[in-house]
Amino acid sequence: MNRERFTVIYHIVGEEALALEKAKILCLEQTVEVGDELVPDGFIRDHIIGQLAHFSLLANQRYEAQISYDIETSAFELTQLLNVIFGNSSLKAGIKVHDLHLGEGILSHFRGPRFGIAGLRKRVGIFDKPLLCTALKPMGKSPTEIAQLAYDFALGGVDIIKDDHGLSNQPFCPYEERVKACAEAVAKANEKTGKNGIYVPNITAPTTEIRQRVEYAKRQGAGGLLIAPGLTGFDTMRALAEEETVNLPLISHPAFLGSMVTSPENGFSHGVLFGQLQRLAGADASIYPNYGGRFGFLREECRSIAAHCQNKMGDYAPIFPTPGGGMRLEGVPDMLALYGNDVIFLIGGALYSRSMDLVENTRYFLSLVGRQ
Amino acid sequence: MNRERFTVIYHIVGEEALALEKAKILCLEQTVEVGDELVPDGFIRDHIIGQLAHFSLLANQRYEAQISYDIETSAFELTQLLNVIFGNSSLKAGIKVHDLHLGEGILSHFRGPRFGIAGLRKRVGIFDKPLLCTALKPMGKSPTEIAQLAYDFALGGVDIIKDDHGLSNQPFCPYEERVKACAEAVAKANEKTGKNGIYVPNITAPTTEIRQRVEYAKRQGAGGLLIAPGLTGFDTMRALAEEETVNLPLISHPAFLGSMVTSPENGFSHGVLFGQLQRLAGADASIYPNYGGRFGFLREECRSIAAHCQNKMGDYAPIFPTPGGGMRLEGVPDMLALYGNDVIFLIGGALYSRSMDLVENTRYFLSLVGRQ
Repeated sequence: MNRERFTVIYHIVGEEALALEKAKILCLEQTVEVGDELVPDGFIRDHIIGQLAHFSLLANQRYEAQISYDIETSAFELTQLLNVIFGNSSLKAGIKVHDLHLGEGILSHFRGPRFGIAGLRKRVGIFDKPLLCTALKPMGKSPTEIAQLAYDFALGGVDIIKDDHGLSNQPFCPYEERVKACAEAVAKANEKTGKNGIYVPNITAPTTEIRQRVEYAKRQGAGGLLIAPGLTGFDTMRALAEEETVNLPLISHPAFLGSMVTSPENGFSHGVLFGQLQRLAGADASIYPNYGGRFGFLREECRSIAAHCQNKMGDYAPIFPTPGGGMRLEGVPDMLALYGNDVIFLIGGALYSRSMDLVENTRYFLSLVGRQ
Repeated sequence: MNRERFTVIYHIVGEEALALEKAKILCLEQTVEVGDELVPDGFIRDHIIGQLAHFSLLANQRYEAQISYDIETSAFELTQLLNVIFGNSSLKAGIKVHDLHLGEGILSHFRGPRFGIAGLRKRVGIFDKPLLCTALKPMGKSPTEIAQLAYDFALGGVDIIKDDHGLSNQPFCPYEERVKACAEAVAKANEKTGKNGIYVPNITAPTTEIRQRVEYAKRQGAGGLLIAPGLTGFDTMRALAEEETVNLPLISHPAFLGSMVTSPENGFSHGVLFGQLQRLAGADASIYPNYGGRFGFLREECRSIAAHCQNKMGDYAPIFPTPGGGMRLEGVPDMLALYGNDVIFLIGGALYSRSMDLVENTRYFLSLVGRQ
């Protein structure tokens, strides 16, 4: 019987004998959850338990283990696939998911990104340069004030105008009032400019309310949806990407996911968490903190995210790396060198603070990336 | 204007000046996400931004910061509340959420645990001793084989017989077939023993399928539901706890949450993640790896989890700490000393491996905790 398998590459910390032991235990922990002496011979031993395909030294006290799993262990569900990859072993210190080789047997069960880079470019009508995204803030402003910001940014030529991810349905800025006002403001500015800026509301919400927020956003003419899968679960994003009636680009926000990358020895690599898992769950753009900003991500980590957003992953569309988080305009040339044209620059504070004139600030930024 | 606030206690790593600076930035990062110079005076500066209420030395290079937030920033939604607590700042190294003081203004917006310790005890009919839980495994067995295990454990007197959390809807063990067979097996054993053991299927599943799994489980007579909020999102568990038609005890599994506690400097304290957040999201029992097992949790961390499962939290019911994970029977006396009677012992491998006779193994374990 030839059964298909997928492979997870783990980095394991420890002396060689200990790291090897950890790798062998991973094979059991992620599947049968019993000691080797309790694994029945036959189907379970031959197929269900993880198989250590490769084990090698990476650096002092750091080893790479490649472990393959039968694709059926995933039940072809994103929740259970994540569970096989790292469910129980996330609870053990010194193990990091470094890379995933999922293969068609898994990937074909999920739709992946519905729009990807090409689809999102088509929507905003910009085909050969970086896109510009900004966030509407600060929290505490009224819907009318937020909509005024949206209007100014759209007038200046921001392609993607999104809610700050902390704007939900607060009493001081109710969701429906805000979304209606902002969608109208951006449409009005587009009429004036002839451009196709899109308003992207934050639909991160209680599981029982997400669908009505999405429907409301669509009715008002939103051009995309912002969602934080760390708060809703990755599968909630996947379901939105797969549903025909939703049919809007999804921009993923990293809120609450940080603990999965902040430790060099635990959790996930940056490329897996902000690249592969986002595509698997249907994001069209993946926001993450840029290097040199206020979050401490390294240039190399950001490069790896961009690579995992775009390199071959079955038939999945490549998606936009969307670096943000306290970026300064002076950093743009180096970012262009690193990311090339297929990037969305998420610029918040720097667009607000350069001068009082948001329209002018936006135009200045666009000129920096060779636009207009 | 007197507006209610809730408080998050962060532990911050660094030299005093740096840690204090991090604390001040937390006040902005978790709310307005702009630099202090861009915070408008009035409502936003006075109420919306976080307020550093207390800052003190804990140990060398480790400080405690107590930061309060206006309750309305949470929008009274669990997703947005988690976002205010740690959304963006999870992405920064050296910050840990140590404790939460939420207050009635927040807690009253969520139902909390529907059953809690008292409700779950009533369901299984055991009022004054620890409960015993076991997991049906290994993955790869057929529904008939799994149901045979369920029968034996129920006959021996296990109170809570749950799916291993890796059993989902695999082709080799389909959900509906398994749930029907196991529920019937446990009912049959209960008839024989006169006891009230419950079968608890794993309903961790794609967001679009959870409801039908829950409904199916209820129709077959399941006595509770197992869910891994790290995979589904915490809010999915909350919604199940709050919905009248569900009305079954929820047992929370820690899969995929581990990266949030494995680093001593990042993420959450054990008590917040496996105690407070679980109660907030409606779990009636919180599974976590016991000290001395195969996961490396410390005794003190487990004590803290148990405390946060049970100490005063508004009107919320206390819930069962449910330590598991490679526990040995020899460890039971010390666990009784630590946890007292209000605990569920989750014993997997040790019940399978003591002898071939699962019924006898179960009876032996029950005698260790003073049952029968």
